Amino acid sequence: MEEYVKILQRRIIKEIELVDGNKFKIDRWERPQGGEGISCILQDGKIFEKAGVNISIVHGNLPESAIQQMKSRNKDLDPSNGPYPFFVAGISIVMHPHNPYAPTIHLNYRYFEINNANGTKLWWFGGGSDLTPSYLFEEDAIHFHKTLKDACDKHDPSYYPEFKKWCDEYFYLKHRNESRGVGGIFFDDLDRKPQEEIFAFIKQCGDAFLPSYVPIIQKRKDMKFGEEEKHWQQLRRGRYVEFNLIWDRGTKFGLQTPGARIESIFMSLPLTARWEYMHKPEKNSREDNLMEVLKNPRDWVA
Amino acid sequence: MEEYVKILQRRIIKEIELVDGNKFKIDRWERPQGGEGISCILQDGKIFEKAGVNISIVHGNLPESAIQQMKSRNKDLDPSNGPYPFFVAGISIVMHPHNPYAPTIHLNYRYFEINNANGTKLWWFGGGSDLTPSYLFEEDAIHFHKTLKDACDKHDPSYYPEFKKWCDEYFYLKHRNESRGVGGIFFDDLDRKPQEEIFAFIKQCGDAFLPSYVPIIQKRKDMKFGEEEKHWQQLRRGRYVEFNLIWDRGTKFGLQTPGARIESIFMSLPLTARWEYMHKPEKNSREDNLMEVLKNPRDWVA
Repeated sequence: MEEYVKILQRRIIKEIELVDGNKFKIDRWERPQGGEGISCILQDGKIFEKAGVNISIVHGNLPESAIQQMKSRNKDLDPSNGPYPFFVAGISIVMHPHNPYAPTIHLNYRYFEINNANGTKLWWFGGGSDLTPSYLFEEDAIHFHKTLKDACDKHDPSYYPEFKKWCDEYFYLKHRNESRGVGGIFFDDLDRKPQEEIFAFIKQCGDAFLPSYVPIIQKRKDMKFGEEEKHWQQLRRGRYVEFNLIWDRGTKFGLQTPGARIESIFMSLPLTARWEYMHKPEKNSREDNLMEVLKNPRDWVA
Repeated sequence: MEEYVKILQRRIIKEIELVDGNKFKIDRWERPQGGEGISCILQDGKIFEKAGVNISIVHGNLPESAIQQMKSRNKDLDPSNGPYPFFVAGISIVMHPHNPYAPTIHLNYRYFEINNANGTKLWWFGGGSDLTPSYLFEEDAIHFHKTLKDACDKHDPSYYPEFKKWCDEYFYLKHRNESRGVGGIFFDDLDRKPQEEIFAFIKQCGDAFLPSYVPIIQKRKDMKFGEEEKHWQQLRRGRYVEFNLIWDRGTKFGLQTPGARIESIFMSLPLTARWEYMHKPEKNSREDNLMEVLKNPRDWVA
């Protein structure tokens, strides 16, 4: 996994630099408690307001709070038997384009390993990818979901329906009763097949990133827009911040991990966001159409 | 308390409308599960980007998660003896001015009551007020703290030093190792004196709001500023959002309360905020001077 995320990161950066015309800033960092990472950020580019492609390979002992969280997910961990050495290797991507018609994308895939006191090893893969538009283009949602479904179907026909549903449930703002975006796939604790088979699936998903997103960006990046569309995008960015700071488990795990690199965790936040009291889009407006889909997630591919 | 917060809200709105020249939007709401409130918001005013003065009088049964949180604060509550009927009356204020030289203020005072299964009643007061500048004016911090200290000293000389320290500890962004602002006072679970005495202290603190803040606003609201100052203010607004969504107990309690009015809870968020990757102010700049104080809280009054 370590080698794969490094190769994938390089490939994605190269392609996105071609799209934007600007270069990523590359920061290599080490975690004093063990581990390293490479954070690549393109900020205030031509097409992207902020795009981050991070990889991290971290090891250490699981903090108590993380053990509790994992226990609640049926991991066989007894806090009194700790500390548990862990290893995690993953890639995280968030890209926020300038153009309000171009959607934000998020991807994260990670491999997690915990050494049990009795010498056995727990391991699993988790992650997914989801799309967050400010304006709904059905063809974009369909293209995105179809690309992910094709990747899933190559490995197990049950994956896409299960992980699509999981994504709708996970990227959900309970306090707003709305989804973050038009979804995608999400899963965690995936260990139901031999490790090599799941790893092959993860690579398929990682490889699907560019084909799932770049065609959409090419279509939307030069569309004309005005103040009104920018304003709505900023309000939607506010919701993105709410999800990441209140609900996202990855962010929470990051904030709990001693010595975590906060600037890498927060690269997922947009450059700018907005909150207005009691803002409500006009009935049947394009803004209202998006809200309709966020309140009632759709099936985008048959 | 119910009557007091209503009077205080009216008084503050009247005065702030005089400062800004614009009117607050007033929303009365009812909570289906029990309770009511009045949310007053001034958005995109002349002086204030967003100013909210909310009161709420809510009753119902304590959600399990809230009981757990209160137990950890030494309240004698056994979740298996629940449900516990509760009553809370409070006032919350947040004001974000346009001018980067004018600080954001926050105030919250609340009375909490829980009926125990054995017929006894738990009650306490909590709250405080704190100041969050983007640029440090020592005289403003001193004026603010002095006004609060005077209010405290009229009731108990031990209050100010204790509650000043509590404020520094509470309004702290652990993930950034920095304070939210220059502090003020904060306390919770205050029940160590007869109820009437503490209530008199709370009223003193509420009455101190206008004299603690309005002179500062009058001094700063018309100061000339440029792009650079606005940019820094927006980054500091990002930190304000981080504190409120990640750490603030009041926001968490609100999000946990079934039927809570989300628009009233989130009036505390600024109109706009900004996140930049790896932003660091220049050494010895005015921005860096503020950071110095946020990393090392000072005593503002002897």
